[in-house]
Amino acid sequence: MFTLPDYIEPDFSEERFVSAPNARLEAAPVDKAAPRNFHAMSIFPEYFKIEGKWYLAEESRMDCVPVFEKGRIHVREFRNLRQGDMVVTGRTENCEEGIYVHVNCFDWAVRASAGSFAFRQTRSRETAFSYDYERLCELLRYEKEHNGYVVWVMGPACSFDSVARESFAKLVENGYVQALMAGNALATHDLEGAYLGTALGQDIRTQVPHENGHYNHLDTINRINTCGSIERFIQEEHIDSGIIRACVSSGVPFVLNGSIRDDGPLPEVYEHTYVGQDAIRSHVRKATTVIGMATVLHTIAVGNMTPTYRVLADGTIRPVYFYTIDTSEFAVNKLGDRGSLAAKGIVTNVQDFMHNVIRLLEL
Amino acid sequence: MFTLPDYIEPDFSEERFVSAPNARLEAAPVDKAAPRNFHAMSIFPEYFKIEGKWYLAEESRMDCVPVFEKGRIHVREFRNLRQGDMVVTGRTENCEEGIYVHVNCFDWAVRASAGSFAFRQTRSRETAFSYDYERLCELLRYEKEHNGYVVWVMGPACSFDSVARESFAKLVENGYVQALMAGNALATHDLEGAYLGTALGQDIRTQVPHENGHYNHLDTINRINTCGSIERFIQEEHIDSGIIRACVSSGVPFVLNGSIRDDGPLPEVYEHTYVGQDAIRSHVRKATTVIGMATVLHTIAVGNMTPTYRVLADGTIRPVYFYTIDTSEFAVNKLGDRGSLAAKGIVTNVQDFMHNVIRLLEL
Amino acid sequence: MFTLPDYIEPDFSEERFVSAPNARLEAAPVDKAAPRNFHAMSIFPEYFKIEGKWYLAEESRMDCVPVFEKGRIHVREFRNLRQGDMVVTGRTENCEEGIYVHVNCFDWAVRASAGSFAFRQTRSRETAFSYDYERLCELLRYEKEHNGYVVWVMGPACSFDSVARESFAKLVENGYVQALMAGNALATHDLEGAYLGTALGQDIRTQVPHENGHYNHLDTINRINTCGSIERFIQEEHIDSGIIRACVSSGVPFVLNGSIRDDGPLPEVYEHTYVGQDAIRSHVRKATTVIGMATVLHTIAVGNMTPTYRVLADGTIRPVYFYTIDTSEFAVNKLGDRGSLAAKGIVTNVQDFMHNVIRLLEL
Amino acid sequence: MFTLPDYIEPDFSEERFVSAPNARLEAAPVDKAAPRNFHAMSIFPEYFKIEGKWYLAEESRMDCVPVFEKGRIHVREFRNLRQGDMVVTGRTENCEEGIYVHVNCFDWAVRASAGSFAFRQTRSRETAFSYDYERLCELLRYEKEHNGYVVWVMGPACSFDSVARESFAKLVENGYVQALMAGNALATHDLEGAYLGTALGQDIRTQVPHENGHYNHLDTINRINTCGSIERFIQEEHIDSGIIRACVSSGVPFVLNGSIRDDGPLPEVYEHTYVGQDAIRSHVRKATTVIGMATVLHTIAVGNMTPTYRVLADGTIRPVYFYTIDTSEFAVNKLGDRGSLAAKGIVTNVQDFMHNVIRLLEL
Repeated sequence: MFTLPDYIEPDFSEERFVSAPNARLEAAPVDKAAPRNFHAMSIFPEYFKIEGKWYLAEESRMDCVPVFEKGRIHVREFRNLRQGDMVVTGRTENCEEGIYVHVNCFDWAVRASAGSFAFRQTRSRETAFSYDYERLCELLRYEKEHNGYVVWVMGPACSFDSVARESFAKLVENGYVQALMAGNALATHDLEGAYLGTALGQDIRTQVPHENGHYNHLDTINRINTCGSIERFIQEEHIDSGIIRACVSSGVPFVLNGSIRDDGPLPEVYEHTYVGQDAIRSHVRKATTVIGMATVLHTIAVGNMTPTYRVLADGTIRPVYFYTIDTSEFAVNKLGDRGSLAAKGIVTNVQDFMHNVIRLLEL
Repeated sequence: MFTLPDYIEPDFSEERFVSAPNARLEAAPVDKAAPRNFHAMSIFPEYFKIEGKWYLAEESRMDCVPVFEKGRIHVREFRNLRQGDMVVTGRTENCEEGIYVHVNCFDWAVRASAGSFAFRQTRSRETAFSYDYERLCELLRYEKEHNGYVVWVMGPACSFDSVARESFAKLVENGYVQALMAGNALATHDLEGAYLGTALGQDIRTQVPHENGHYNHLDTINRINTCGSIERFIQEEHIDSGIIRACVSSGVPFVLNGSIRDDGPLPEVYEHTYVGQDAIRSHVRKATTVIGMATVLHTIAVGNMTPTYRVLADGTIRPVYFYTIDTSEFAVNKLGDRGSLAAKGIVTNVQDFMHNVIRLLEL
Repeated sequence: MFTLPDYIEPDFSEERFVSAPNARLEAAPVDKAAPRNFHAMSIFPEYFKIEGKWYLAEESRMDCVPVFEKGRIHVREFRNLRQGDMVVTGRTENCEEGIYVHVNCFDWAVRASAGSFAFRQTRSRETAFSYDYERLCELLRYEKEHNGYVVWVMGPACSFDSVARESFAKLVENGYVQALMAGNALATHDLEGAYLGTALGQDIRTQVPHENGHYNHLDTINRINTCGSIERFIQEEHIDSGIIRACVSSGVPFVLNGSIRDDGPLPEVYEHTYVGQDAIRSHVRKATTVIGMATVLHTIAVGNMTPTYRVLADGTIRPVYFYTIDTSEFAVNKLGDRGSLAAKGIVTNVQDFMHNVIRLLEL
Repeated sequence: MFTLPDYIEPDFSEERFVSAPNARLEAAPVDKAAPRNFHAMSIFPEYFKIEGKWYLAEESRMDCVPVFEKGRIHVREFRNLRQGDMVVTGRTENCEEGIYVHVNCFDWAVRASAGSFAFRQTRSRETAFSYDYERLCELLRYEKEHNGYVVWVMGPACSFDSVARESFAKLVENGYVQALMAGNALATHDLEGAYLGTALGQDIRTQVPHENGHYNHLDTINRINTCGSIERFIQEEHIDSGIIRACVSSGVPFVLNGSIRDDGPLPEVYEHTYVGQDAIRSHVRKATTVIGMATVLHTIAVGNMTPTYRVLADGTIRPVYFYTIDTSEFAVNKLGDRGSLAAKGIVTNVQDFMHNVIRLLEL
C-alpha cells in the first residue's frame, strides 16, 4: 500500500531555535527590488523567527523572497515586490539569523534504510524504470483517492501520436489530471489532430503526410481564432477527441503560455509572460504531484516554482512529487535532480510513457 | 574571394506569368483571423499578380499571410491581422492562382556543379566542419565590408565561459555584430560574470564554486533592478567585460525576451511575448546573416521569421545566411534544415565555436 | 491483414539485359584483396550476367565482393577472399558492364500510393510511433506463422530492468525469437540479474544498490567460468529467469561477441572478432526480420550484413524488415536510414518498447 | 607553473596497519576463474599485507584480481588467471583483512581548499571549459618535458575533417603523443583521406561527395591489403598527410583493434579481441595521461584498465590524468566520472578540441 512519509516537525524547544535572534526584516527599496542581503528561498520548508515566533512559509518558491505581511510569510517573486515590502534578510540556514531551512523534513525511513545511495542517482537510458512506473501509478491512485492535485506539464510531442493523445484523454476523464500546463504548440497540434487528423500535416494514425498538410496547423489556428475561443471551436466543429477536448469536457483547467516561436497564438494563450507565469503558480500552489513530459522549458518553469512540500487544508504537510519524462538524459537530469527523494526522472519517449501509465492504471 | 550568388529574376514574359489570373484578395473576417483558403508564405521569394502586375513580398515571413495594402504586399502575422485586411488566398505555387513561389532563386552554380547532394546533408558530430568555418569567416568579413546586418542569437551557455564571453565581446567591438537576440538568462549570467565573476555561482575562470554562489545571479538581478536599467548598472558598478557591456558600449542593439522560467526579469526584458516577437522581427527585417548559438527556442523563433532572401536598399536581392550551432544534432538539424544552400549547421560546443571564429578572423 | 509485397522480377527480355555484355571476372591477386575495380555489393538484389545468363546473388552483403564459383555468385568479405577467387569487376549498375542493381524490387503499392514522402522521413522523438508498433506486431505474428527467422540484436540496457527481461523471455518462449545477437555485457548482466537480483549491483526490481554490489557482475562471471559454461551454470545455480535462460531452455541460439571493454569474458563469447562476425552472418543469412535494440555497435554490425531481401527455400523473394530501437535519434537514424521501406526506427527506451510489444502481442 | 600533487604515503606505523592480519591468499580453482570471495581491484592504489609486509599493486587494473607471485602483486584479468594462481581474497578496504585501498592518496590541497564540490561536478554543454583547456595544455607541456607517456584514444570522427587530421599530426610530430589507440575505422578513414582526399567518400576539405565515393574506403582497404601493410602502402602510394602517417614516420606506436562492424580489416588490426585488449594494456601500463576522443567503446576499454596512479621508474608515484572529449554528455559523464580529481570531461566536437589544443600549444 502506498503511504506518504510523515513530516518531521522541527522541535522548536531545541536550544538553537530558542536562542535564535529574530529574523531581520528590511523594506524593499524600490518596486521589483529587494534590500541587499535579502534571503532567497530554497525548495525546502523554511521557518522564520519573527517577534519570537517561528513562521513557516506555506507556499514557497525557490529563488524568491520571504515577505512578512499581515501575520504571514508570503513568498514573492522579485518582479512582484513593491517598495516597502518587509523582506527577510540573512543567508544562513540554521537559526543563526532567525532562519531555519528544514532539509530533511520527511521520514523516508523504509526506503532510506535500503541504501543511502539510492536517491542520488543520475538517471540514464540504462536505469531500470519498472519500479518507478509502479510507484508512480500507486501515487496517482493515491492522489485520486485523497483529493490530490496532479499538475501535468506537456510539450508538443505529447500530441503527435494518436494513441498517446487518447491515453492522456483517458487520464483526464478518469480523474488523474487536475491541471494541464502547456504552450501554444501542444494545444494547436492536439486540436489539429482532432480537427484534421494530422500533426504538422502528418497523419496521427498512419504517419502519411496529407496533401498541403503544412497548412493544417494554420487552418486549425485560423478556424479557432475565427470562432473566438477553443470552446466554441470544439462545439462548432464537433471536436470529439484529444487532450484539450478532454480537459474542456471534464472541466480540467489548462494554462497555455505563449512563446516567441509561436504561430497564432490561440485565443486562450497568455500573451504576457509573467502573467502566464503567475497563472502557472496559481496551480502549483495547490499541486501535490507534478509530471513534466517532453518539455524542457515548461518543466523548468514549473519546477522552479515547485517546493518539496505542500501544506494541506487540514494543516498536515506532505511531499510534492515531481516526475520528469524525456528522451534526453540532459533534460531528465537537469530537471529531475532536485535533491529530494520525491523527484524522479524517466528517460523514455513520452508516448510510451503514456501507454505504460494507462496499462498500469488499467484504464 | 567571397561572392554572393546572383538572384535569378523570374522572366515575367513567360507564358505561365502572362496567362496567370490575378491573385484573389479576400477580406479578413475578424481581427486575428484570415479568410478560409488564405495563402501562407514560405521562406522563398513569392510574387503575387495583382491587377496584372507581379509584386514581390519584400519582407517575408513563413507561415504568415500576404496582405495587399497601399500598393505593396505586406506579410503579416495572424495576430496582427485586422478585420478587412485584404489577404491573398490560394494555395498553388506556380501561377495557377496568380501566386508564384520562387524556390530556385539564386545561382549557386559553382557549388552545385560540384555535387548535387552536397546541400541536402544531415549534419552530425561526424561532419567535417573546417570548410564551414572558413566559409563563415569569409562571409563575416564580407558582411562587415558591405554593410551587412548580422544578427546573433544566443543561449545562456554562451555566457558561462570567460574566454567565450571575451571572444564575443571582440566580435562586437570589431563590427561583426549588428544585433543580439537572447533571453533574460543570457544577459543575467553574462552580467553576473562581469559583476561577481561567476555564472550560476561557479567561477567563470576556474570553475570553483563561490561561497553562497547560488545567490550571485539573484544579487545581480536585484542590483540591476535597483539601479533601474542595465546601462545604469554598468556605469554604477563599473562593469568592464562581457557580452552585454560590449553591446552597450558599442551601441549594438539587443533584444531580450522573457520566458516563463525566468527569475527577475531584468528591466530591459520584453514581458509581452508577441511584442517581443515583433521586436525580434524588426531586426530580422534587416538581417543578411543570422547565427543561432546554443538555444533552440530563440533560434527557432528567429528562424521562423527569416526568409531566404533580402531586398537591399538598392533593390538587389541576396541570400540571407543562416547558421545554427549546437552540441545536439537534434537541434542543429531541426533548425538548420531549411531547404536552402544558405543554411548550415555546426555540431559543437558554442565556446569552441567562438574560439574558432576569433582565430580565423584574427581578432 | 498483413501481407508481404510482391517481388518484381526483372524482365530479362528487355533490351538492356539482352544487349548487356557479360560481367568481367578477375582473379584476386593475393589473399584478402580483390582486383582493382572490384564490384562491391549494395543492400539491394544484384544480378550478374555470366556466360549470357543472369545470376542473382542469393545471400548478399553490402560492401563485400561477388565471387563466381561453382555456378553461383557468392558474396564474400575481403578478409575471406583467397588468391585466385574470380571476382566481378565493374562499378555501373544498369547492365552497362553486366551488372544490374535492382533497387525498386518490391511492390509497395498500397503504401506508396498514400504519399510518396512517407518513407523518407527522419525519425525523431516527435514522430508518431503507434503505427509502427502495430505494423511491427503484425509482422511478428506473420513471421511466427510463416516460419520467418527473426534475429534480435540487444545491448546491455535490455537486461537492466526486471520487467523488460521478463518480457523478452516471453517473446522467446512464445516463438517470436529465432536468434539473439549480443555482447558479453548483455549476457553477464542478464545472468547477474537471475543469479543475484541485480544489474551492476543495483536491484533490478527496486533500484536499491546491494551491499558490495559492484562485485556482483564479477561474481557472476567467475561462477560461470568456474562452472565452465552458461548452460552448466544455469543448471547448478537453478537459474529460472531472464533472457539467456529463456534462450537456453527454448533452444534459441545466441551469438555473444567479445569487445575490448569486456570483463571476463563468459565462456561462450567469441574471442576472435571476425570469427564472431561470421557467426552473426550465419544467422543473418536466414533472417527475415532484424530488430536492433539499444546497441549501436551490434546493430551496425548486423545491419552492415543484412540485405533488403531474402530468397526463401521455395525460391520466392521477400523483404527483410529491419527495426532499430534507441533513445538517441543519432543512433536510430544512423542505423534506420537504409533507403528501404522495410527499415524503420523508433526513438524510445528499449524497456518501454518491450512492454509495448508484449502488450500488443497479448502475451 | 604546472606541478604534480604529492603522493601521500600511508603511514604503516599506524595501529590499523600494524594490527592488520595478513591478507588471505587462495589458489585459483581452474583456469580463468578466481576463488570465491576474491578481491577485485579499484582504480586507487591498493596495499596488501603479506607475511607482515605491505605490498603496493604497482600496475593495477580495476575489476581484476591481485595475484601474489615472485614477491610481487600482479593484477591479472580473470581470463589470464591460471589454476593455482595465488589470489588475494577479502572485500574490505581498511586493513580488516590485510587489504588497504588508498582513496585520498594525492595532495590536491590548493585546488581542494577552493571548494569541496569542485571535483564532483557533472559536465554538460554548459560547463565553462577554458580552464580545462588551459590545464590540459600545461599538462601536455609538462608530460613532454618530463618523459610522460600520453596515450590518445581516438574514434573515427577524428579523421573526418582535414584540419583536425593535420592538427593531430602536429601533436605527433611535436612529441605530444606516445601511443595511439583506435579501431579499424579511424585508420581506414584517415588513410582514405590521405590516399583519395575523402572520408566515406566525402571530400575532407570541401564536403563535396566524390563520384562513386562510397567505394573510396573499400579501395583504400583493398590497396593496403594488396600492399600487405600500412607501412608499405604509405611508401608505395606516397602518403604524406594524416594521423597514421604521422605516427609511422615519427615512430609512435599505434594499436588498432577490430570490431564486429568492420570492413576489411587492415593488416595491422588485432583480430583477437583479448589479444588486442592486452596490447592496449601494454601501453596503459606506462601511461601518465590518457585522452579519449569521440569513442565510447575504446575510451571505456582504456578507462577500465587505467588506474589513478602510476609508479615511475624512480619509484615516485604520480596521478594518471584522464580526459574524455565527446559531444554527448552521456559519454563524457559515463567515462569521465571516475571519482578522481585527475579525470575531466569536455563536451565538444573533437575537431574543435584539436583546434584549441593546437592553438594553446602554439603549434
